[in-house]
Amino acid sequence: MQVAQRAGVSLASTSRALHGTGASPAMVERVRAAATELGYSPDAIGRSLRLKKTFQVAFAVADIGNPVYVEMMTAIHEVLAPHGYRVVVMTTGDTTRSTVELVRSLSSGFVDAMILSPLRTDDELVEEIREAPVPVVVIGRTLADRGIDSVSTDSAGGIGEAVRHLLGLGRRRIAFLNGPLDTTPGEARQRGFDAATRAADFDAERVEVAPALDFTVAAGLATTRALLDATDDDARPDAIVAANDLLAIGAIRAVRERGLSVPEDVAVTGMDDTEIGRVFQPSLTSVSLGSTERGRVAAQLVVDLVDGDAEPGRHTAVGPRLVVRESTAPGGGSR
Amino acid sequence: MQVAQRAGVSLASTSRALHGTGASPAMVERVRAAATELGYSPDAIGRSLRLKKTFQVAFAVADIGNPVYVEMMTAIHEVLAPHGYRVVVMTTGDTTRSTVELVRSLSSGFVDAMILSPLRTDDELVEEIREAPVPVVVIGRTLADRGIDSVSTDSAGGIGEAVRHLLGLGRRRIAFLNGPLDTTPGEARQRGFDAATRAADFDAERVEVAPALDFTVAAGLATTRALLDATDDDARPDAIVAANDLLAIGAIRAVRERGLSVPEDVAVTGMDDTEIGRVFQPSLTSVSLGSTERGRVAAQLVVDLVDGDAEPGRHTAVGPRLVVRESTAPGGGSR
Repeated sequence: MQVAQRAGVSLASTSRALHGTGASPAMVERVRAAATELGYSPDAIGRSLRLKKTFQVAFAVADIGNPVYVEMMTAIHEVLAPHGYRVVVMTTGDTTRSTVELVRSLSSGFVDAMILSPLRTDDELVEEIREAPVPVVVIGRTLADRGIDSVSTDSAGGIGEAVRHLLGLGRRRIAFLNGPLDTTPGEARQRGFDAATRAADFDAERVEVAPALDFTVAAGLATTRALLDATDDDARPDAIVAANDLLAIGAIRAVRERGLSVPEDVAVTGMDDTEIGRVFQPSLTSVSLGSTERGRVAAQLVVDLVDGDAEPGRHTAVGPRLVVRESTAPGGGSR
Repeated sequence: MQVAQRAGVSLASTSRALHGTGASPAMVERVRAAATELGYSPDAIGRSLRLKKTFQVAFAVADIGNPVYVEMMTAIHEVLAPHGYRVVVMTTGDTTRSTVELVRSLSSGFVDAMILSPLRTDDELVEEIREAPVPVVVIGRTLADRGIDSVSTDSAGGIGEAVRHLLGLGRRRIAFLNGPLDTTPGEARQRGFDAATRAADFDAERVEVAPALDFTVAAGLATTRALLDATDDDARPDAIVAANDLLAIGAIRAVRERGLSVPEDVAVTGMDDTEIGRVFQPSLTSVSLGSTERGRVAAQLVVDLVDGDAEPGRHTAVGPRLVVRESTAPGGGSR
C-alpha cells in the first residue's frame, strides 16, 4: 500500500512490477525505487500486500499416513484441483509449540492458505492463527467466536450414539475401550462415554477398562486381553465401544481368542468408519466422523476466502453418523 | 548467465538481486536493468538459471488415496522434511497424455523436482521427462538407459515367489486372481504368473480365472464366487494367488461363504503388504513391493539431484519380499 502510494501507481501495477509479470520496464524501476526508499525487500512487500498468488494450499496434520487424514486430503485435493490450487502436505509435530512454528512459517509466503488440523489447541496457537498472513481454516475445535473459519465434528456425541445403539440391541454390560486420555480424541471420547452412561436412559452396567496405550490394533488387543483375564464370565462385557476402528479390531481379536464370537457374545463398535473397518470380517459397526465431508467443507471455505470475499469466522459441524455393520448387527458376525 | 554477464556481476549476486534476498539496492537496479535490456521477465530468468529454489518437490500419482501411494508419500515426506523440502501432492490422471501435461506444467517453476509414479509410460512421456526443466525421478519402470533416475520393483517376480511358496506348502491347484490386464500392474503380474507356471519346478495344476473388473474387494469377491460356482468340488483350487491385498480379501470372503476355511481348504496370498492385509483376520500372506522403501529411495535421489551434483540415470530395484502370515501358514487361519 505504502509502496503503491509512494510510487503513485495502482496496487495492481505495483504487484505486476514487483513480480515481473507484464509491467513496463519504466514501471518496474519506479516501483522498485519506491520500495527501496521505504526500506522493504521486494518479497516482503509482495507478502504484505498479499498480491503474489502461489496457487498452493497447505494441509497440515499430525500424521499424514493416518487413514482419517488421508481421506481429508483426498477430498481437499478433489475440491481444490478444479480451482487450480495444489495441495502441500505438512506435519504439525506433536505439540502446540511446533504447530505455532508451522503457522508462523506461513510468513514466507509459500501458500495462499492453510487447512490445519491440530492435535491440541491453546491460546497462543489461536492468536497465531488469527494473525497469520494468509487465511487458516481449522479442522477440529469450533473457533468461530475467535474470527477463524472452522469445521468440527462431535466425537463425544458419536460415542453416545454407539452406546444408545448397543442399549437398543439389549446389551447390558458395556465397556469403553479408549486410547490415551491426554490426547484431544481420547479426552473428548471419554467425555462422550461418561455423558452417555450418566444419561437417564442408560439402563445397563458400565464395565471399567484402563485406557489402551495407543490408538492401535496391538494396544486394543493387549488391553482387551487384560480386561477379559480380569473378569469372571458372568461379569464379562457383552458390548465394547472402542474409541477408533483399530482399537475395535484389536478387541475383536482378543474376544475371538477366547472362543467367543462377535457379535453374538460381544458386540463391538469402532469410530472413524475407515476402509480397514469396512473390509474387516466381521465388518465393523463404526461412528463416521465425516472425514471426507470435513475435508471437502474446509477446502470450500478456503476457496471462498482466497478467491472470493468471504469474511472468516464461519463454522460447519459435520456428523457424527453411526454406520451399522456385522460387528453388532444380529445375524452378521464372525465365523 | 547472459544477464549476469551483461550486468557484470556473479551468478549468485544475480540470483539474489532478482529475488530480493540480500542484494544492495544498487545491485538490484543493475541486474534488473540488464535483464530488461535483454528482454527477459525476471521470473523467466530465475527459472532458466534455475536459481530460484522453491524448496518444494511434487509427488505425482494416479490416486493419492491408494494405500500404496500413501506409504510412498509418508516415506518421501520423512526423507525430504529434514532437508527443508515440502511435498506437493498431485494427480497424474489416467492417461499418458494427462501425465505428459503434468510434466509440462513443471515449466511454471513451482517445484525444484518431481517424483512421478505413472500408471503407464510411452515414448512421448519419457521424452517429456528427459526435457523437463527440473529433475524428475520415476517410480515404476527402469529408465536408466534414458538418462532418468528411476526406482523399480519386480511385481512379476513377486508373483513367482507367491507361487513357489504355495508349491512348497504342497498346494496342487493354483488359481491366479488378477485385476484388469490393460493396466501396468495387471500386465506385469500376469506375466509373472505365466512364467511361474511354465517353470520346470511347477508341479501343480493351473486353474484358469477371468480377471476381476477392478483391484478391489468387491471385484475379488464377485470373481471368486463365479470361479467357485463354475468349479466342481474336486477341481476347486486349493490356493489362490491374488494380484493385490484387496482382491485377496475378496477371495477369502467368497471362500468362507461356501463354508470353506482359509488356509486349510484354500490358501490365499495378496500383494502390496498393506495395513489392511496385516490387520485382517486371517492376516494376509502378501508380497511386499517395498512402497516405503521405494518412496525413501526416490526422495534420496531427489535430494542428491537438487542439493548435490549427482548425474541422473541411476536406478535402484526394491523387493519383492514375501511376508508369510495366517492366510497360508499351516495352523493360522480363519475362525
